[in-house]
Amino acid sequence: MKSADPDSSFDSVEAGHEMHKFISELYPICRSITGNGVRQTLSLINKRIPLEIKEVPTGTKVFDWVVPKEWNISDAYVKNAKGERIIDFRKSNLHVVGYSIPMKKRVSLSELKQHLFTIPEHPAWVPYRNSYYKEDWGFCVNHDQLIELSDEYYEVCIESSLKDGHLTYGEVHLQGDRDEEILISTHICHPSLCNDNLSGIAVAVFLAQYLSSVSRRYSYRFLFLPTTIGSITWLALNEAKLSHIKHGLVLACLGDTGAFTYKRSRRGNAEIDKVAEYVLKYSGRDYKVTDFYPYGYDERQYCSLGFNLPVGCFMRTPNGQFPEYHTSADNLDFIKPGALAESLENCLKIIDLLEKNVWFVNQNPKCEPQLGKRGLYRPLNTKGEPPIEQLGILWVLNLADGDHSLLDIADRAGMSFDEVSKAADDLMRAGLLKINKD
Amino acid sequence: MKSADPDSSFDSVEAGHEMHKFISELYPICRSITGNGVRQTLSLINKRIPLEIKEVPTGTKVFDWVVPKEWNISDAYVKNAKGERIIDFRKSNLHVVGYSIPMKKRVSLSELKQHLFTIPEHPAWVPYRNSYYKEDWGFCVNHDQLIELSDEYYEVCIESSLKDGHLTYGEVHLQGDRDEEILISTHICHPSLCNDNLSGIAVAVFLAQYLSSVSRRYSYRFLFLPTTIGSITWLALNEAKLSHIKHGLVLACLGDTGAFTYKRSRRGNAEIDKVAEYVLKYSGRDYKVTDFYPYGYDERQYCSLGFNLPVGCFMRTPNGQFPEYHTSADNLDFIKPGALAESLENCLKIIDLLEKNVWFVNQNPKCEPQLGKRGLYRPLNTKGEPPIEQLGILWVLNLADGDHSLLDIADRAGMSFDEVSKAADDLMRAGLLKINKD
Amino acid sequence: MKSADPDSSFDSVEAGHEMHKFISELYPICRSITGNGVRQTLSLINKRIPLEIKEVPTGTKVFDWVVPKEWNISDAYVKNAKGERIIDFRKSNLHVVGYSIPMKKRVSLSELKQHLFTIPEHPAWVPYRNSYYKEDWGFCVNHDQLIELSDEYYEVCIESSLKDGHLTYGEVHLQGDRDEEILISTHICHPSLCNDNLSGIAVAVFLAQYLSSVSRRYSYRFLFLPTTIGSITWLALNEAKLSHIKHGLVLACLGDTGAFTYKRSRRGNAEIDKVAEYVLKYSGRDYKVTDFYPYGYDERQYCSLGFNLPVGCFMRTPNGQFPEYHTSADNLDFIKPGALAESLENCLKIIDLLEKNVWFVNQNPKCEPQLGKRGLYRPLNTKGEPPIEQLGILWVLNLADGDHSLLDIADRAGMSFDEVSKAADDLMRAGLLKINKD
Repeated sequence: MKSADPDSSFDSVEAGHEMHKFISELYPICRSITGNGVRQTLSLINKRIPLEIKEVPTGTKVFDWVVPKEWNISDAYVKNAKGERIIDFRKSNLHVVGYSIPMKKRVSLSELKQHLFTIPEHPAWVPYRNSYYKEDWGFCVNHDQLIELSDEYYEVCIESSLKDGHLTYGEVHLQGDRDEEILISTHICHPSLCNDNLSGIAVAVFLAQYLSSVSRRYSYRFLFLPTTIGSITWLALNEAKLSHIKHGLVLACLGDTGAFTYKRSRRGNAEIDKVAEYVLKYSGRDYKVTDFYPYGYDERQYCSLGFNLPVGCFMRTPNGQFPEYHTSADNLDFIKPGALAESLENCLKIIDLLEKNVWFVNQNPKCEPQLGKRGLYRPLNTKGEPPIEQLGILWVLNLADGDHSLLDIADRAGMSFDEVSKAADDLMRAGLLKINKD
Repeated sequence: MKSADPDSSFDSVEAGHEMHKFISELYPICRSITGNGVRQTLSLINKRIPLEIKEVPTGTKVFDWVVPKEWNISDAYVKNAKGERIIDFRKSNLHVVGYSIPMKKRVSLSELKQHLFTIPEHPAWVPYRNSYYKEDWGFCVNHDQLIELSDEYYEVCIESSLKDGHLTYGEVHLQGDRDEEILISTHICHPSLCNDNLSGIAVAVFLAQYLSSVSRRYSYRFLFLPTTIGSITWLALNEAKLSHIKHGLVLACLGDTGAFTYKRSRRGNAEIDKVAEYVLKYSGRDYKVTDFYPYGYDERQYCSLGFNLPVGCFMRTPNGQFPEYHTSADNLDFIKPGALAESLENCLKIIDLLEKNVWFVNQNPKCEPQLGKRGLYRPLNTKGEPPIEQLGILWVLNLADGDHSLLDIADRAGMSFDEVSKAADDLMRAGLLKINKD
Repeated sequence: MKSADPDSSFDSVEAGHEMHKFISELYPICRSITGNGVRQTLSLINKRIPLEIKEVPTGTKVFDWVVPKEWNISDAYVKNAKGERIIDFRKSNLHVVGYSIPMKKRVSLSELKQHLFTIPEHPAWVPYRNSYYKEDWGFCVNHDQLIELSDEYYEVCIESSLKDGHLTYGEVHLQGDRDEEILISTHICHPSLCNDNLSGIAVAVFLAQYLSSVSRRYSYRFLFLPTTIGSITWLALNEAKLSHIKHGLVLACLGDTGAFTYKRSRRGNAEIDKVAEYVLKYSGRDYKVTDFYPYGYDERQYCSLGFNLPVGCFMRTPNGQFPEYHTSADNLDFIKPGALAESLENCLKIIDLLEKNVWFVNQNPKCEPQLGKRGLYRPLNTKGEPPIEQLGILWVLNLADGDHSLLDIADRAGMSFDEVSKAADDLMRAGLLKINKD
């Protein structure tokens, strides 16, 4: 079986284009934190990677929260005096404020304006808005259109329903050699918005596909959830499973062309934090690593005080730091196949490193073993220095006490993980190392 | 009742002038480590804040030391050949070396000179000198006067007494909600010297006055002591009380216009150290924080190895670092009402922060609580960032594990203490926090 | 008896010349990891410092290794067609590859060339080579000579023997007041090479001589060993003694004029690491301190994972970092009497500091003791600062808790070890300190 190492047999260019195509399929769907948009999304995911789809009834108590009513929408518009649809849900689902209650009435321009949202700084863009926990209604339009509204009265119609139903989410579990899990979580509640977060969905799906076909030391759990209420619901219903989670990543905003950003887990020095930083450091590209802060995506729930799971957040440009964020400009043009491909590659590198980052124990700790008789000795150069392969072997022997991971050893030796990992392979074959049970 | 927060109802300009006036009353008194000067000083303090005055007999063993004989002086002079008082205790008590033994004799100029002290670099200033633990006598004069002495013989007279008596000190105890105490200690043994340390006395007295009128989580203990032997005596006689001392400050040199200096406790990272540094950092003014060193004022006794109390020293320009130090130039002109006022304000800010710096425990640690239903939710800005009030709430919820104080949380969040404290108040009202018993 | 302090009675200039002379005696001997060259070397050492000479039989199992056959050589040459010795072991023992097997045959130029080693970058120098663990033969020549070889056939003769015998090493043990030991280890397996490592041998011998004549708190163990197999052998046969080793130094490359280099023990913060760095820091000369790395000299065995002894390596220019390294240019001219003298001096300073670096406990920890009545009080200067002797006393009293060594106190106080040590002496005499048993 293949390993998780993306170098071995992986066409990232093709994967980038396929992810972009998949995002195009998901783009038109009107998603929210509940409803049929979520179900359609999960159904498209399910075609690519078998998914367990869970339905949690409205009213279910999940910690301090309650699963909300289910929201669905079939049509919505604002008609002018001539009866023309001047704002039309069928053109873009962003036009309706998410969780808008059903509505059909004639309103004055001034009343209408109280329910219209625009972005004055970007007058051609339509904003993304919702009102999950307060019953209300509204439309989002570009600012240019708002300015031109001149009729005295308008007909407003929202054919939505907000009633008891379910919160829907999807889960993929890939059993590995061990029950210890790596959690990959991504949110699926945004309507026609590409970077935030169809990019995260696509990368997670392709990651799951890839990992399902390779040998795995760890088990993997992928969660496709509405943000906040989704992760809270999952955590509330799955507390017994949390002790298996050894590492985790929230994936978001992975399709733009900005530099990568890794936001550390609340622990700050968890293995996932070291590994993600290592991969970015050796990527040869600009990147940013930030300490945890208690807002952002679902890492805020995984890293809440009572759980403090070792879950970081992997992004390119973070939420709110690109102007297209939560606007109609976060569209299919904004995200690039090459950017998605590179994001997937880095996720695979992080996972590959987690898979390989083992704690070894030197089986011959007293003095160096005689490497020559095992074919592992390489003579010093004329400066009296061992060549790099020999160095790796000497460092691993010197530090493999069961408390230093291979990444710790690489870090201490100032060598790359691959060099140290290669040395550990040689020593394992020679019977000089044993894996520390951990 | 008012809180210790100096912003609420406190006229610092007026306080500055009143402190200066109080110092003017104290200035003429001839203080030393024992004697009636100390008693007169404590009696003036007692008019402003009720004081317990303690008398410890000469000969009392206090650790490695013994309470010395009591020294009193009524007059002293040097007369020239014409019988004129050319050095006169009645003009300034600095003219006599403290603890000078009684003396009346005719001396040659050369003998006299062996008992005269001057400051050649500042020929117009009179130095301050004493000889506590070696029986001797002497006079301090300005260098210009020394040079002009030309008579062959002089009459020396010191009408002092050095006999069994008492060491006198004053103590104020303000009971708070808890028995845990904040110690404020200041020395009262210097004669006509203003910055060192009538300024410290004045600030301590006004601090005690202020605190006596407000609600207090902590109890407070103010000590007005002769330096070294006074704090040693107090520590020796009050060992049983030391476990109550949670924080402490030695106050000195608080009337000059130099930048503030905080000298850390020996522990270096005690809460008082963090709080004092925080207050200075947010003061918007230059300041200096130094690590502990085992000389200076009475912190050297509080921070001796066997006690290691969390006591720092709060000053403006430290002892020895201003030319007027221990000279007649450390007079009523050298200290300024505005400087005294600012010193008092900063002391109040430190104390207010200690009063408010609580360890909270999040009562809903698993995932975030639903803030909206408690009226604590504020929507994200267009950049997807929570406004500052929301940030404070999220940080407190995320870190209130009973091990992080509010100041620790502010530090980690990069927010001001007030912002974080406000958030904690909101969360307390919503029942989402409990104070950690500590 | 004298102390280890080299200042007291030590003529370093003379010692430098004597060490150089001693190296001249050792220089011609053909040493290897076994054989009579080692025995002759130990016999010359034995004339200067009584030595226990150990013989460990070929085949003895020492951890993962086996003591190899003993190698001896009496003559070796290559003759040209005219029968002239064009390569001659009698001119320099570097000409024969160490551990070359016996050989007598006629070879073609092309076969000969496969067994000739040169340094093209330094065509006038002869390299140093050996083949300990693979049976082979060869000659080392200067590159100029290699180029000029033009005869078709040559006569090769190596009169060596490689048979069961012994590995020989020398040991000096100097009993001190305590059984705890300082280990000094140096390798003796290099033939006519001066800096690496006749310099190390000479400094170790003179150090042993000096220490044998002074009072010692610690015991000392000097090891004169063939590198790698020697230290492995000693460790394997002396495991029971290792718990006595409190500090250790490997000595090498101490005769060149480069700056000093201290390579830390694997622990990185062992007392020897702090002490060696302190001595170099206060030497007023350039120096380098490097973290441990698992190649170099015998510290790689002492610091292997299973032992992790507090052993550093003291050098001037490290192995491989000077061009003359392992070539005929590392000769008697390359090393200087003054450089050897300075190396010895620094070793003595390190040892003196280890001898004096005591953990004290303040016997009067509550408040300062009254220094005046013990003659230890010195008045403050006009800046209110204690003079340096007083400072030392105050710092030692404040920090002598049994957990801070004198060096730790010096470091915290920003004072020199001598100043702090002097203060501790004064306090010991006054009965105010006790040595912590450690």
